[in-house]
Amino acid sequence: MTGERRTAESMADQHREISISEFFEKNRHLLGYDNKIKALLTIVREGVDNALDATEEARILPDIYIKVEEIKKEKYKVVIKDNGPGIVKKQIPRIFGSLLYGSKFHRLKQSRGQQGIGVSGAVLYAQLTTGESTKIISSTGNGKTHKYELKIDVKVNQPKVVREKVTEDHDNKWHGVQITFIAEGLYREHKQSVMQYIKEVAISNPYANIVFDTPNGRVEFARGVEKLPAEPREIKPHLYGIEVGILTRMLHETKARTLQTFLTSEFTRVGRLSAMDIIKNAGITRENLQTGKEEPDFNISPKKVKHNMRVALVDAIKEVKLTRPPTDCLSPLGADAVQVGLKKELNPEFAATLTRPPEVYRGWPFEVEVGIAYGGSITDPTLMRFANRVPLLYQSGDCAITKAVGQVDWKRYGLAGDKMPDGPVVVFVHFASVWVPFTSESKEAIANYPVIIKEIKLALQDCARKLASYLSGMRRAQAIKEKKEIFERYAGETAAALEELTGEKRKPIEEMIIKLVEEKWGEIVKAINGGEPETPEEESPPPEHDIKEEGEENGESREGDAGEHKEAGE
Amino acid sequence: MTGERRTAESMADQHREISISEFFEKNRHLLGYDNKIKALLTIVREGVDNALDATEEARILPDIYIKVEEIKKEKYKVVIKDNGPGIVKKQIPRIFGSLLYGSKFHRLKQSRGQQGIGVSGAVLYAQLTTGESTKIISSTGNGKTHKYELKIDVKVNQPKVVREKVTEDHDNKWHGVQITFIAEGLYREHKQSVMQYIKEVAISNPYANIVFDTPNGRVEFARGVEKLPAEPREIKPHLYGIEVGILTRMLHETKARTLQTFLTSEFTRVGRLSAMDIIKNAGITRENLQTGKEEPDFNISPKKVKHNMRVALVDAIKEVKLTRPPTDCLSPLGADAVQVGLKKELNPEFAATLTRPPEVYRGWPFEVEVGIAYGGSITDPTLMRFANRVPLLYQSGDCAITKAVGQVDWKRYGLAGDKMPDGPVVVFVHFASVWVPFTSESKEAIANYPVIIKEIKLALQDCARKLASYLSGMRRAQAIKEKKEIFERYAGETAAALEELTGEKRKPIEEMIIKLVEEKWGEIVKAINGGEPETPEEESPPPEHDIKEEGEENGESREGDAGEHKEAGE
Repeated sequence: MTGERRTAESMADQHREISISEFFEKNRHLLGYDNKIKALLTIVREGVDNALDATEEARILPDIYIKVEEIKKEKYKVVIKDNGPGIVKKQIPRIFGSLLYGSKFHRLKQSRGQQGIGVSGAVLYAQLTTGESTKIISSTGNGKTHKYELKIDVKVNQPKVVREKVTEDHDNKWHGVQITFIAEGLYREHKQSVMQYIKEVAISNPYANIVFDTPNGRVEFARGVEKLPAEPREIKPHLYGIEVGILTRMLHETKARTLQTFLTSEFTRVGRLSAMDIIKNAGITRENLQTGKEEPDFNISPKKVKHNMRVALVDAIKEVKLTRPPTDCLSPLGADAVQVGLKKELNPEFAATLTRPPEVYRGWPFEVEVGIAYGGSITDPTLMRFANRVPLLYQSGDCAITKAVGQVDWKRYGLAGDKMPDGPVVVFVHFASVWVPFTSESKEAIANYPVIIKEIKLALQDCARKLASYLSGMRRAQAIKEKKEIFERYAGETAAALEELTGEKRKPIEEMIIKLVEEKWGEIVKAINGGEPETPEEESPPPEHDIKEEGEENGESREGDAGEHKEAGE
Repeated sequence: MTGERRTAESMADQHREISISEFFEKNRHLLGYDNKIKALLTIVREGVDNALDATEEARILPDIYIKVEEIKKEKYKVVIKDNGPGIVKKQIPRIFGSLLYGSKFHRLKQSRGQQGIGVSGAVLYAQLTTGESTKIISSTGNGKTHKYELKIDVKVNQPKVVREKVTEDHDNKWHGVQITFIAEGLYREHKQSVMQYIKEVAISNPYANIVFDTPNGRVEFARGVEKLPAEPREIKPHLYGIEVGILTRMLHETKARTLQTFLTSEFTRVGRLSAMDIIKNAGITRENLQTGKEEPDFNISPKKVKHNMRVALVDAIKEVKLTRPPTDCLSPLGADAVQVGLKKELNPEFAATLTRPPEVYRGWPFEVEVGIAYGGSITDPTLMRFANRVPLLYQSGDCAITKAVGQVDWKRYGLAGDKMPDGPVVVFVHFASVWVPFTSESKEAIANYPVIIKEIKLALQDCARKLASYLSGMRRAQAIKEKKEIFERYAGETAAALEELTGEKRKPIEEMIIKLVEEKWGEIVKAINGGEPETPEEESPPPEHDIKEEGEENGESREGDAGEHKEAGE
C-alpha cells in the first residue's frame, strides 16, 4: 500500500477532481454543522434568512412559520414556511439541490444570503445524517403548487429529484415557500440556540411576524413595525477596490466600446473627467497622425488594453480622487429602530445607539450600527453581533466585532471589564454591507479588515461616552441623594444646635433646612428614583437628546446624496 | 433597477451557477489572503506544505529553497523549489490551474495538504492582484524538464496555459518542482510572518533542510535529523463515524457482492463476527425457504439494502463493540523529537513533552502531542500550534488548541495567567490526523470537536504537572539554599554561644555545623546552582525520567497492535 506511491507517475493516478458537494460533505463544519445543537440552528437560519430575503425583495411584510419537532431520538423535522413570492418551477431543483448556485453572488446588494450554498448545504446535511430527502412546496400565487422531494447527487453536485407533483387550485392564492428537512440534531434553549437566534432576529427585523413551534410549545414574536425598511439598491463596483485580475476579466467581458466608457459605465462614481484623468495618468497613449505627437488614448477598445496598461491603470486609479460609493445601497436598521428594539426586548434603564456614516473596504460600501444598553432587566454582559440583520451566534473569537469591542478601553467609560464591559451591559453591533466578508461559509464571524474594526470601535466609543456620562450623572446623583438624606436625618439636631446658638425657634429652622435641601437636590433625587438623571455639566446635550439627534442626522443622510458624506467617515 | 425584482419570475432570471474559482476570488480571505503580510505567508506555506508532502511520500529527505524578493513596491516574486519526485506533465496544468483538484482529498492519510485548493489558490491570488501568470518548472528526474506559465480561467475553474516548453538534457537528473509566483504582498518579520512560519517548520520537521533568501539576506535552517519519520499509512474509514448519507453512497459504489463482505472490506477493523452481529442487530432478514422462518440475511446484495435497512444498520453499528482504528496510520513527531526540537530552538531551562495515545473523532483517528518549555532563553509566553506538522499562525481565537489551553487551570500548576500561562513559557501542541477539521479553507485553526479539546487538555495537564513539580522542587531548593546560607553565616556566632554554654572549643563546633549543613543541604544547593533539582517527595518519579517513560511507552504502542490501546485514551 505504501510502496506504490513513491514516484511522480504513481502519484499522478491519485489526482482527481473534487465536487463542491463532496468537499462540504467532508467539511460540513465549514457550513455550520459541527455538532447537533448547532446543526439545528444552522438549518433554521438558512431557511429563515432566505425567507426574509425573498419577502423583502418582493416588498411583502414577512410572516414566517418555523417548526422544530423531534420525531425520533436526535432526529428532527424542521419546517420553515414563508409568504414570499415563491420560486418558479424550473429553479426549485437547482436552488435546493446544487451548491454554489444562487442569485445573490454575482451582484452587489445588501442581503442575508450571498454565496448560494446556504439552503442546499442544509439539504446536504439532512441527507448525510438521515439519508432523507428534503421536501419543498412552492407557489407563486397563480393557483399552482409545486411539490418536490429531492436530494443532492454529491459526486456531480446536481439535484436528484425523488418525487415531484403539481396541484392546481385556482381558489388558493397562497404564495411562498415551505421547506421540510429531516435531519439529525439536538434541541436546546441556551445562548447559542434556535431560540436565541429567533429572539435576535426579532430585534433586528421588527417588521417580521414569526411563529415558532418548539418541541416545548409555541412562541410568537409579533410584528413590532408595520413598515418594511427601505429597499437596498444594487450597485456597481467602486474603482477603489479594483485589482488587476478583476479588471482584466471585466475588460474582457464588457460591452463598452472604449476604455473611457468602460470606466464610466461599469463602475460607480466615475465621471467622464475622472475616467480621462485615469487614462492620462496611466500613460495609455496613441500617436496623433496629424501632429506626430503621443496623446492619451481615451477611445482604445477595452479588448486591446494589454497587461502593462492594466497594471498602469490600477496604479493610476490610486492617484485619482473619486467620490465614495453611494450610501443608499445600504439598508441599516437606523439608530432609532435599534433603540426601540433594545428597549422592547431588553427593558434596560439606559440605551445609547448610533449609526456611523458609510465607509468602504475593498471598494465595497459598509455601515456600522452600535447600541449599548445598560441596567434595568439586563443582568449579564452580552455581546450581540449582526451582519445584514442576521444574528451571529458562533465563532465570536475571531470576529471583527469582538476584536473592536476588545479594543475599547471600557474602564475609561466607568465600566469594569477588560475585553468586554462587565456588569449589566448589552453591546449590540450591526454590520451592513453589499458584501459581508465572513470568515467561513457558515457565516458566523466577520473577517478582520482594519477599516471595519476601526469603524466599529469609533461607534462603540461614542455610545460608551454617552453611557459614561449617564453613569457619572447617576453616581453624582447617588452621592447627592445620600447627602440630602443625611441633611434631612440631622435637620432636627442641626436646628436644635442653631436654636441654642441664635436663640431662634428650632421648628422654623428645621423646616427651612428641609425646604432648602429639597429645593437644591429634590429634583435630582426624584430623577434617580425613577425619572431622568441630572445632566452632567461638562457634557452639553443630555444623552437621550444626543441619541435622537444621531438617528435623525442619519435619517437625513439616507435621503440626500452620498457625495455630501465624502468626508463624514474620515 | 428595483422594480424588476418583485416577482418569482423576475427573481428566477438572476439565478446562476458560481464557479469555485469565482467563489474564492471574491472570498479570498477564506484561503488566507486577508491582507498583504498574510498573503505572502500563505503563498509560501502552500508551496512548502506541498514540497514537504511530496518529498515525504517519495521518501526523500527534503531540501527546500525559498526566495521572497520585492520587485516593485508591495509586489513580490516568491520562489519555492524542492527535490521531490516532480509532477508528470499532464497533471501540471490541473494541479496548479484548477481549484478542488488533488490527490489527498479522496483518501484517509495524514498529510499537510488535503483539500486540493492550496497551491491553485495561490495562483488565483497572484493573478488577481498582479494579473501575472505563475511559472512552474518540474522534472521527474528523466532528463526532461517541463516549464509552464499558467493562469486560472475563473469562470470555469480550468487552467489557462499561457506558455509551455520542454527541455531535454539527459545529463541533468534533477527532480522536483519549482514554482514562481508574482503577487502583491508585504514582507515583515514579526510573530505571524513567513520567517516565523519557517522557524516553526524547522521545529516540527527537523529532517528538512531549508534555505530561505529573504529580502534582507539568506537564512539557513540546517537539517537536524538525518532520518524521515515513519511513513503514515492510508486507512479505510472506521464504522464509528459512519452516517446514513455516506453509507448509502458506499453501498451504491462498492464492488462487494454481499453486505457482510461490504462491511469487512470497505471499513477498517470490522471482522466477520462483528459484521454478522451488525446485520443481525439491524434486523435485516430473509425467509428460509425450507423452515419458513426469518433469518439474518448476511448475503444480501449491497445494492438491495433499502433506506430503512440503512438507518437500522447505522443504529446497529452504535451497539457493536469495534476495535479502534489502527495507530500506525498516524505519524506523530514523538515526545522525544519534540523535546529535542524545543531544546534546540528555544534553549529552555526545563521542558516536558508527551504524546497521547490515538483517539477517534467522527471515525477518524487523531493523536495529540504537547510540550511545555520553561525559562532559559524563553522570555515571553507563546503558544505554538501545529496540525500535521504545519505551524498555525492565525485564527488562534477559535482553535481547539487555544480553547484547550484556556481550559487548563494554570494557577493549580504554580503558573500565573488565566487563559494562557504567564511568564517565560512556550506551550507547543501538535495535532496529527488522517483528516484535520480546519475551521476554514485557509487551514489556520482546528474545529472545536469536544473529544479533540479533551485530549489536548489532558496532555497539557500532564505536562503542566511535571512543570509544577519541577517548579516546586526549584522553590523548595531555593528556600533550603537560603536556610543553608543563614546557618553558614551565623555558624561562628552559634559556635561562640555553644562554647560559652558547653565549654567546648568554638572552632570544632563551627566546623561541625558547616559540615552538617553541607551534608544535609549541599546536594540540593549544588543542583539549583546548575544541576538537577531535588525530587519532591510527594511525586515519585523525577520529571526528566517521567518524560522519557512517556516517550518510550508511546514508542512501543506505535509498533504494537492498536487493539491493546482500546482503553488507553479513555
